[in-house]
Amino acid sequence: MKNFTHAIPTKLYFGEGQIDKLDAALRGFGKNVLLAYGGGSIKKIGLYDTVTGILTAGGFTVTELSGIEPNPRIESVRLGVKLCKENKIDVILAVGGGSTIDCCKAIAAGVYYKGDLWEMVASRHGILKALPLVDILTLAATGSEYDAGGVISNLEINEKLGNVYTYPAVSICDPTYTYSVSAYQTAAGTADIMSHIFEGYFSRTEDSSLSDYIAEGILKTAIKYLPIALKEPTNYEARANLMMIASVACSGIPEYGKQGTGWPCHSMEHELSAFYDITHGVGLAILTPRWMRFILKKDPSCAWRFVRFAKNVWGLSGDDETLAIAGIAALENFFREAKIPMTLTELGIGEEHVAEMAAHANRGNYLKNAFVPLTTEDIEEIFKNCL
Amino acid sequence: MKNFTHAIPTKLYFGEGQIDKLDAALRGFGKNVLLAYGGGSIKKIGLYDTVTGILTAGGFTVTELSGIEPNPRIESVRLGVKLCKENKIDVILAVGGGSTIDCCKAIAAGVYYKGDLWEMVASRHGILKALPLVDILTLAATGSEYDAGGVISNLEINEKLGNVYTYPAVSICDPTYTYSVSAYQTAAGTADIMSHIFEGYFSRTEDSSLSDYIAEGILKTAIKYLPIALKEPTNYEARANLMMIASVACSGIPEYGKQGTGWPCHSMEHELSAFYDITHGVGLAILTPRWMRFILKKDPSCAWRFVRFAKNVWGLSGDDETLAIAGIAALENFFREAKIPMTLTELGIGEEHVAEMAAHANRGNYLKNAFVPLTTEDIEEIFKNCL
Repeated sequence: MKNFTHAIPTKLYFGEGQIDKLDAALRGFGKNVLLAYGGGSIKKIGLYDTVTGILTAGGFTVTELSGIEPNPRIESVRLGVKLCKENKIDVILAVGGGSTIDCCKAIAAGVYYKGDLWEMVASRHGILKALPLVDILTLAATGSEYDAGGVISNLEINEKLGNVYTYPAVSICDPTYTYSVSAYQTAAGTADIMSHIFEGYFSRTEDSSLSDYIAEGILKTAIKYLPIALKEPTNYEARANLMMIASVACSGIPEYGKQGTGWPCHSMEHELSAFYDITHGVGLAILTPRWMRFILKKDPSCAWRFVRFAKNVWGLSGDDETLAIAGIAALENFFREAKIPMTLTELGIGEEHVAEMAAHANRGNYLKNAFVPLTTEDIEEIFKNCL
Repeated sequence: MKNFTHAIPTKLYFGEGQIDKLDAALRGFGKNVLLAYGGGSIKKIGLYDTVTGILTAGGFTVTELSGIEPNPRIESVRLGVKLCKENKIDVILAVGGGSTIDCCKAIAAGVYYKGDLWEMVASRHGILKALPLVDILTLAATGSEYDAGGVISNLEINEKLGNVYTYPAVSICDPTYTYSVSAYQTAAGTADIMSHIFEGYFSRTEDSSLSDYIAEGILKTAIKYLPIALKEPTNYEARANLMMIASVACSGIPEYGKQGTGWPCHSMEHELSAFYDITHGVGLAILTPRWMRFILKKDPSCAWRFVRFAKNVWGLSGDDETLAIAGIAALENFFREAKIPMTLTELGIGEEHVAEMAAHANRGNYLKNAFVPLTTEDIEEIFKNCL
C-alpha cells in the first residue's frame, strides 16, 4: 500500500431540504455573494427563486454571473474574477453541476492570481489562496462538490486543462434538484462517475483492500440505480444513491494507497471536449471499453484485474479469459442500454484531429506510467477504435 | 436514504515515515505542547525518542502526561487539564491508541469547560471549544484518530461514558508503529473495528448502497488481514490495511444515509468495562455473536440482513435460514481462531452485576430504537448468554 494524505475540508450537507443550511454556510464568510450558475435550468426547477429568496431574506448583497458553459471557458473565469474584484465579493455561491463549480473554483483562485488567468489554468504551481466557495449541486457527475479540481477550456486554442484550485467550504447536495436532469445527462453523468472509478481501479496495486471495495461498491451502486433513475426520474432513492457515489468517486478516496495511473481516459476525453465541445461523460463512455480492450490485448498480464472486475462488479463467473472480455462487454452493453451514443461517428467526429489529440493527450510522455503504459500511437489507435 | 452531514476536518497522514509531518502539524498551533501517552510502550518501540527528538529540534516547550490508562479515567483528564492550564499549552500531542487519544480529546475540551469535568463527560451538551489536538496512532482499533468521540471511565461509580469532544486536527497513521502490538491486542482491536461496522450495518435502512458496501469492504478486509497480522506481526500490508479500516469504521461514514441504531453492543460493553475494566474489543467480541443470535430469534423479520451478511461478507451460499445462522457462526469462529476468549467466565466475570449492568445500558429506554429493540430483560439475557 502506498502512502496517502486525506485532507478534504469540505462540509457536505446531503439530503432533501438541506438548503436550510445555506444562510449559515454563507454568513460566516461575509455579505457580498457572487451567485454563479449556468444556462438557466436552475430557474426552470425553481431553485433560483429559492436561493435568491434566502439571500434577500438574509440581507446578502448579490452579484450574478450566469451562462457558465457546460465545458466552462476561460472567458467565464475572466468575467467572474472581474465581477469579484469590482464587487468586493466575500464568498462565491455556485449553483449547478460540475461545470459551474469548476468555473467558480478557478474564479475563486483567480481573484488572487497575479498573472494571466489562462497561465494560471495551465500552470502546475499550487494555488495558495482562493475565495471561499459554497455550492448547491444539481447534477450527479463530476464530483467537483467534493474535490479541489477544476477543468477549464480555451476553445481558441483547443485546450481543456485540469488543475487543482480549492475545495468547496460547503456543498449542499439535495437529490431532488436532479429530478429534472434529462435521461441523456443522467446517463452521461453516471458514465463520468464510473470513469472516475475505472481510472484508479485499474492499477498495479493489489493490497489497498478498502479502496478497491469502495470502488466496486460505487460501480455496483451506479449499475443498480442508473436504470431506475432513467425509468423514474423522480425516484428519490435512485437520485440519492447516484448523487452520493458521485461525490466519493472523484474525491481520491477510492484510490488511497494505490499507485497513480495518470487517468488515461480523462486525458483522452479532454481532447475530444476541447476539439468538439462534446458532453464529457459521453466521451468517457465511448472511450472506456475501447481503452480496456486495447490494454488487455497490449498487456495480457493485466487480465487479473479485468477478471476481478467481471466477478466483483458484474457478478459474472467462468474461466478467466472469458471473464476478462465479458466484464468489458457488460460495461459497453450497460452504456448502450442507457442510450449513450457509443461511437464518435454518431457525434459527427471523424479522423481529422486524431493525431493532434493523441499527441496532446500524451504530452510530456504523460501516460508512460498508466496501468498499461500508452504511447501516442496507442492513443491514436484507441481514438480510431471509437469511430 | 436518510439525510446526513459529512464534516470531518481531520487531516490524516497515512503510511510509513509520515512522522516527518509532525513538526509542521504542531507549529501552526504554537510552541507549548502537552505530550501525552500511556504505559510506556511508545518508549519500547523507540517512538518516544523519535518524537521528543523532533520536538527538541523544533524548539517546542514540552510538558509530559504519561500513564493514561487502557480505559482512560477521569483522574487522567483532570490531571491533563491542570497541566494544560498551568503550562499554557497551545496544542496537545497524543501518542498512542484510542485510549490516549480519547483522554486527550476530553482534556482538550476540559480546558475550556467551566464546571466539574465528570459533569462534562456525562453531559449531553455540545462541546463548543477545545484545544487543537494532534495524534500519532499506535493501535488499529477505536478509530479515535478520525472521529470526535471519546469514552472516559469513572471506576469509583462504575461508569464508562462516551461523549463528542473534538476531532484531531492531524492524525499521523504509520502502520509500522503497530508491529509490536501483541496478538491479543491486535485481535481485540480488530474485533472493535468490526463491531463499529456491525453497529450500523444491522439497520432497517436498505437503500444506502455505498454505506453498506463500505461496511462489507471493511469487514472483508479485517477477515483477510487479521490472520496475517497475527502470524506475521511485521507484515506491512496487513498492518496498513487494519489501520486504514480502523479509521473509517468509526468515522460515521459506513452509516451515512442509514437510520440510527443506538449501537447496542457498545452500550452493553461499556458496562462490562466499567465494572470489570476489561479490554473493550474482547468484550465486544464476546457480546456480538450472542446479541446477533438473540435478535435473530426475537425478530425473525430481520433475518434478511443476516443473510446478506453471510453472503457478502463470508461468501457463503445456501438457503436463507441456514445462511443467517451460518454467518454468525463464521464470525464467532473467526474470533475464536484469533484466540480471543469467547466467554465472560474466562475473564472471571459472573452473574453478580448482570441486572445492574443491563439497567444502566438501557437507561432512559435507550435501546428501544435499536435494529431490534432491546428491553432491559433482553440485555440481561444477552449478558447471561455470554457467561
